[in-house]
Amino acid sequence: MSASAYADLSNRLAEIADLTRAAELLFWDERTKMPGGGAGPRSEQLATLAGFIHERMVADDLGKLLESLEPWGAEQPYDSDEASTIRLALRRWRKARRVPTALAAEIAGAESVAENVWVEARAQSDFPALLPHLRTLIDLKRRLIGCFEDFEHPYDVLLDDFEPGMTVDQVRPVLEELRDGLADLLERVSGSSVEPDDSCLHGKFDLDRQRALGHAICELMPLRDSGWRLDETAHPFASAMAPSDVRLTTRYEPNFIGTAIWSIVHEAGHGIYESGMPDALRRNPIGNPPSLGLHESQSRLWENWVGRGRPFLHRLAPLLAEHFPDAFGDVDGEGLYRAANAVKRSLIRTEADEVTYNLHVVIRFELELEIFEDRLALEDLPAAWNDRYATYLGLDVPDDAHGVLQDVHWSSGSFGYFPTYALGNVVAAQLWNRARAELPSLDGQLEAGELEPLRSWLDDRLYSLAGRFEPMETIERATGESLDVKPLLAHLEHKYGELYELG
Amino acid sequence: MSASAYADLSNRLAEIADLTRAAELLFWDERTKMPGGGAGPRSEQLATLAGFIHERMVADDLGKLLESLEPWGAEQPYDSDEASTIRLALRRWRKARRVPTALAAEIAGAESVAENVWVEARAQSDFPALLPHLRTLIDLKRRLIGCFEDFEHPYDVLLDDFEPGMTVDQVRPVLEELRDGLADLLERVSGSSVEPDDSCLHGKFDLDRQRALGHAICELMPLRDSGWRLDETAHPFASAMAPSDVRLTTRYEPNFIGTAIWSIVHEAGHGIYESGMPDALRRNPIGNPPSLGLHESQSRLWENWVGRGRPFLHRLAPLLAEHFPDAFGDVDGEGLYRAANAVKRSLIRTEADEVTYNLHVVIRFELELEIFEDRLALEDLPAAWNDRYATYLGLDVPDDAHGVLQDVHWSSGSFGYFPTYALGNVVAAQLWNRARAELPSLDGQLEAGELEPLRSWLDDRLYSLAGRFEPMETIERATGESLDVKPLLAHLEHKYGELYELG
Repeated sequence: MSASAYADLSNRLAEIADLTRAAELLFWDERTKMPGGGAGPRSEQLATLAGFIHERMVADDLGKLLESLEPWGAEQPYDSDEASTIRLALRRWRKARRVPTALAAEIAGAESVAENVWVEARAQSDFPALLPHLRTLIDLKRRLIGCFEDFEHPYDVLLDDFEPGMTVDQVRPVLEELRDGLADLLERVSGSSVEPDDSCLHGKFDLDRQRALGHAICELMPLRDSGWRLDETAHPFASAMAPSDVRLTTRYEPNFIGTAIWSIVHEAGHGIYESGMPDALRRNPIGNPPSLGLHESQSRLWENWVGRGRPFLHRLAPLLAEHFPDAFGDVDGEGLYRAANAVKRSLIRTEADEVTYNLHVVIRFELELEIFEDRLALEDLPAAWNDRYATYLGLDVPDDAHGVLQDVHWSSGSFGYFPTYALGNVVAAQLWNRARAELPSLDGQLEAGELEPLRSWLDDRLYSLAGRFEPMETIERATGESLDVKPLLAHLEHKYGELYELG
Repeated sequence: MSASAYADLSNRLAEIADLTRAAELLFWDERTKMPGGGAGPRSEQLATLAGFIHERMVADDLGKLLESLEPWGAEQPYDSDEASTIRLALRRWRKARRVPTALAAEIAGAESVAENVWVEARAQSDFPALLPHLRTLIDLKRRLIGCFEDFEHPYDVLLDDFEPGMTVDQVRPVLEELRDGLADLLERVSGSSVEPDDSCLHGKFDLDRQRALGHAICELMPLRDSGWRLDETAHPFASAMAPSDVRLTTRYEPNFIGTAIWSIVHEAGHGIYESGMPDALRRNPIGNPPSLGLHESQSRLWENWVGRGRPFLHRLAPLLAEHFPDAFGDVDGEGLYRAANAVKRSLIRTEADEVTYNLHVVIRFELELEIFEDRLALEDLPAAWNDRYATYLGLDVPDDAHGVLQDVHWSSGSFGYFPTYALGNVVAAQLWNRARAELPSLDGQLEAGELEPLRSWLDDRLYSLAGRFEPMETIERATGESLDVKPLLAHLEHKYGELYELG
């Protein structure tokens, strides 16, 4: 009886998964292939798919089925697919049911409008144009929060969309410790007389050669054979139609080769994680990484710990010289390592280096908390933003386009999203520590371009957990410890202490 | 009351249209972009989308809504969007409801299995391997036919899937007249001492240059700006995510340039028709061409009447010389016209010229009729095929791979599909006759590469009708006459009479 009910559940969840993947393909196509004329119809198609997915996810009979299966699921081994599936699906059903469909639709509509307004507002550096839309969005988010009970902090409800089960109480101290450690490190780096030379990354780089290099880098990455492709887009992202069908995207800049190199390694990191999801779970909600933060832990681990690490850059230097002999003919692995890790205080998050990146994130997280704690009026947001950039990064923000308007997240309603970037870095450092301890030949392998042993280790520790557990439990199982910012600070201290001769 | 019920209907139909377009994108991606590893998951995703579409199309409440709107629709002007939408949606709902879901699923499953068996059977030229699957499919089709009443001929039920409302009584005499006329013309062409030289189309053609040529040809075609793209695939097709988002595909052969040229013009013809559908109807079932035959009338009109016609080839000759100076430097418009129109008796339908093509189609149609009239046992199908190729085309079929196994259609269950190819040619000739009469400057425009006046005329006569009427009525409205094979025969007689100096 329960077996057949569970089969019924699996079929319903498989349908939702298939629709979700279909929507993912429409999104990928929109950003990589679609002729401009397709934009309007594509929005309609995506909205319809989202409607079907929502309808199925909140369906009465799905809830009845899940509740009838709950006692049976509780008798199964906690980490079994069956118990994990019922747990996750029930959690999502209950959460989705708390939000009236009309409110969800109102939020989706307001986000879509605000995002369009943002494009123009950023172009014009016109925060007042966006302000009323931000007000609407935040009022709607407060109404959304009002649909829930049993939370310690209103922001917990927002954070839960991206890091299920995580709370401000858990995240705030981590980010505060990170902020203080980074402020201190940045201060010392800035006082150093060492200035790494990154001039080899700047110049004229033929786009077709960049494309060839991009594909060569992907070939180095431990992706599945016949299981990926690489395309071009304005804002790089990765997505997956299946573990065996991973789509990476990148951007090629004519005057800077760094975007192509490290954005590809970053997106490949996302793709490697997706390709590590068990094939048998591809139509099951537990067949996905459990959160954005964990996803980011993989993009960052591959981008920064591997991709900006000394051993792999020793492997990469001759590849760059092969594709761009003029720029890299005289740059050895050590020179590339220095160029790849120059620290620069900059205004734009997405262009930030490893040391300053998390300060950008902390600023956004702190401002979000102040907004939802009613300590910051929205009209004061640009001033608060600029204050923090002066305090944490020592920078004057010249205009809102380079300040509070730079990210799409808030205008697209993604409050609670930013901390996932920092959490990803924190978790990447914890995983890396454990990998180094358990893979004594790691550096030699990376220098030889052998990335499969690391991938395989990550598969054992993290990927094979898939989405069976909530993010915090996943972190604990994969790293063997609880969320801890010290490994990240120690990594940065060690790496940049040496580079900048901080003594 | 009826206005709000009609709005409700429009929303339901829009959802079905969006899902259908989404499935279309998954199909396009599968054939142009998808990494090989995505094949299994993609089948699941397409099956799920098909399931949702079917579920919505046969829904009880859709039927109730349609029946409640039927009297109101009948009071609206016959050619109004409202009346046409209700008429078409009701016809489809009633038809879909006649087929039990279990039978539809069984047919879909058997088609999928047989199509896979066919790939291997064709490779091995092994008809007996496919035979039991063909038996199963035809048994299932007979059960499908059994779900309907009120037909004159069992084949009418199958034909209706591709040409709604058309019957064997209408199609058979047309194809018989076509067959007899073509047999006579082919006999005389074969007796001619003229042999057009098509050697310029054969040789070595660099693939990147072919790609550049392919895009240049597309740029000549009257497609919407920012409303199309061209990709590569194994079996060229065209599809549309919207009238403003048309996807063409082609294949580039290293030793023959003809495929690239005329398959692109052919698929562009399909795309021009799709791009001519009214934007306002893009989420409405009447916002699509009414049938495969009409769709083929456009691909053929652009491929053969324009693309293999003298004026356009005079325009094309310098473009070919520009891209391939070695092969086409000495070929003028007249030489290209002769090369493009060489008649050759060949075994493979998809490689056939304008004169022999329809004979291939007639053979298939006649065999299909014999099967469903219980006059041909399936094990005798190869012999019957080979007999007809000897009689109609004077060819010995060396093996089933080059004979009865060459097309995917039967193994994918598409009985009733083949006649649409011939109908397309018949209708194209009728449209062309009218266009020439109404566009006195047509030849000069085509020779100047001005294709917009013809497109605009087709838009007035055909595209703007969209899918409001059944195919036969659409043909009558667009051509001003009923379905008539004489214009096609006259066109071929005139063109090939001159080329082959038949006197």
